Amino acid sequence: PESKLPALGTTIFTQMSALAQKHNAINLSQGFPDFDGPQYLRDRLAYHVSQGANQYAPMTGTATLREAIAAKTEQIYGYAPDADTDITITAGATESLYIAITALVSKGDEVIAFDPSYDCYAPAVELAGGVMKRIQLQPPEFKVNWAEFADQITDRTKLVIINTPHNPSATVWSNSDVEQLWQIIADKHIFVLSDEVYEHICFAPEGHASVLRHPELRQRAIAVSSFGKTYHMTGWRVGYCIAPAIISAELRKVHQYLTFSITTPVQLALADMLREAPEHWQELPAFYQAKRDRLAQGLANSRLKVMPSQGTYFLLVDYSDVSDLDDVAFCHWLTEHVGVAAIPMSVFCAAPFPHKLIRLCFAKQEATLDAAAERLCQL
Amino acid sequence: PESKLPALGTTIFTQMSALAQKHNAINLSQGFPDFDGPQYLRDRLAYHVSQGANQYAPMTGTATLREAIAAKTEQIYGYAPDADTDITITAGATESLYIAITALVSKGDEVIAFDPSYDCYAPAVELAGGVMKRIQLQPPEFKVNWAEFADQITDRTKLVIINTPHNPSATVWSNSDVEQLWQIIADKHIFVLSDEVYEHICFAPEGHASVLRHPELRQRAIAVSSFGKTYHMTGWRVGYCIAPAIISAELRKVHQYLTFSITTPVQLALADMLREAPEHWQELPAFYQAKRDRLAQGLANSRLKVMPSQGTYFLLVDYSDVSDLDDVAFCHWLTEHVGVAAIPMSVFCAAPFPHKLIRLCFAKQEATLDAAAERLCQL
Ligand SMILES: CSCCC(=O)C(=O)O
Ligand SMILES: CSCCC(=O)C(=O)O
Repeated sequence: PESKLPALGTTIFTQMSALAQKHNAINLSQGFPDFDGPQYLRDRLAYHVSQGANQYAPMTGTATLREAIAAKTEQIYGYAPDADTDITITAGATESLYIAITALVSKGDEVIAFDPSYDCYAPAVELAGGVMKRIQLQPPEFKVNWAEFADQITDRTKLVIINTPHNPSATVWSNSDVEQLWQIIADKHIFVLSDEVYEHICFAPEGHASVLRHPELRQRAIAVSSFGKTYHMTGWRVGYCIAPAIISAELRKVHQYLTFSITTPVQLALADMLREAPEHWQELPAFYQAKRDRLAQGLANSRLKVMPSQGTYFLLVDYSDVSDLDDVAFCHWLTEHVGVAAIPMSVFCAAPFPHKLIRLCFAKQEATLDAAAERLCQL
Repeated sequence: PESKLPALGTTIFTQMSALAQKHNAINLSQGFPDFDGPQYLRDRLAYHVSQGANQYAPMTGTATLREAIAAKTEQIYGYAPDADTDITITAGATESLYIAITALVSKGDEVIAFDPSYDCYAPAVELAGGVMKRIQLQPPEFKVNWAEFADQITDRTKLVIINTPHNPSATVWSNSDVEQLWQIIADKHIFVLSDEVYEHICFAPEGHASVLRHPELRQRAIAVSSFGKTYHMTGWRVGYCIAPAIISAELRKVHQYLTFSITTPVQLALADMLREAPEHWQELPAFYQAKRDRLAQGLANSRLKVMPSQGTYFLLVDYSDVSDLDDVAFCHWLTEHVGVAAIPMSVFCAAPFPHKLIRLCFAKQEATLDAAAERLCQL
């Protein structure tokens, strides 16, 4: 068949993980923990499976899980979405992002995103017949120039995709960034898709600038989160999105015919965890900050320059004192010859990104982080 | 937002299950077992969760599961798909159907389907910008008139969607049906999406007429199956599709950005089950035939006419001796006043379907089937 996505290859995450395996390298590329999630959560999954909770869940998600999410959201962001009409459980955050884009973007609609941007946005926009307009942000701060953003808006702009804490740059937005976005789009028919899968892994003193905190913007926004990141279970594939009922109704039409419903016993286990163990996500920033600092300290005497990480479980390092290779070539070389796999930043940008920056994942045990740092100090 | 699927409501399955619950009716509407799957399979899930198999699976599925599927396929259909390039694990069969349609159908392409047809095909075609051409089949045999089919083919025909054993009619195709389809499309650029989720629930003496048995047709076909149906675990949400490498490569591009990968410990448990307990699917036809016959015998003295069921876990009954209501109204009345929920057939047809036929699910314990039959005998 002729391809509908001719330019698309396998994601960088699959590529680099495969390369890491081939060369037996320490894999700091694809973002996933090398430790397990909470014992209680795993026990609850086994429990619900043994109790026979193995048939179709409701299409929108189990009531218990949606209610637990509504309660948590109110507690953190001071806003209680309606568990019935506003919350939809999906196959990872990935499906939430896909259904939001598919439901909102029609042929010819323009979608604004900020590069570097996570790699699943653009293909979904392309399949929907939309046109991506990418605004390139620059290191080290990756700050939006709001005048430049305003200039990109046209009559066809339908959606803006934002992401904080930001993967891959590890920067975060402030509440004032959210407010500035709102000021520019307030009088226009533009929706906001907010990828907040690292909402609980934020090290900024101000906390996570969720769109759900903003009383007006949240009426136009779809906020997406992920249990895989929060509970160290990237393989369980459960995420969710929160959007006003009128928007959720459209997303659900797509979800209904795309996956229909999500693994029932996993949903029930996650609901138990959210209700019974709120300390888990409350302790997450400190848990990951310690890992971030351990890796950063391990690299302090290396020839890599460590950039600040304000959120996510990623850290950027600048290798310009080490090599003249471009970042893709450097990541391959590093995996093969140094035994550490990382992710090049340029693959997340449509425009040339000539910086010498790579992304390291620190969602790893201390021994893994120490071993990787030791290898990287030999550069 | 303006809707991209304006005509679409909530599926009939969700509607009727909700109505059944409201009226405390016996739910023979939405197709799911009221008994649990194999103990061994549930134990294996708990085992893999406890062993820490909780991070991302490979995008295409775990190697163990793909290899087990390849081996089973060869054993049954005499054709061994390549586990690496031809098999993709998805979020239920629903995602397989969606990615096949999305990858193959472009704006203006025509897709032929046979009504009554399962309700997830048309919305996916519509989102892809394709045009559905539906051929209405007639009870009691729901046989394709091949000349009529040939007449519907145009230069824009891209895909034919077939389904055997057939939900909702409970009829099956023979190998000669598959051959006739092949003869008509052989010299045209047309793909075949074959929904075979009930492949192991076939009562026909000839067995299941999989497209995978056909040496030429399978070069153009995507065959879709479901573990939910085979293992009585509709809530686990794992299905798969088999297609030649060149087609699978396109489906996977969509899958990669839609769900990325499927629940890891569930995949590993299913692989164990396929390898270690082939008797499960071998015994499935007899297991379900006994249930079918029990329900049919229970209705023998009722005023409902039981139609033959050659496959799936559904049975059609004709209620024309009981009521003049149309099938949708009759199903509502039956749920509220008789306490048995069923599915009306007309909702699966684009053309008027003025027959007095409803679908009953017999994937139920004997006590459930007996109680439902008792109520229905009072009509
Ligand atoms: C879906 S695999 C990629 C995991 C991830 O989010 C990342 O590494 O950025
Ligand atoms: C996805 S809910 C519908 C289950 C089913 O396949 C049916 O009842 O036909």
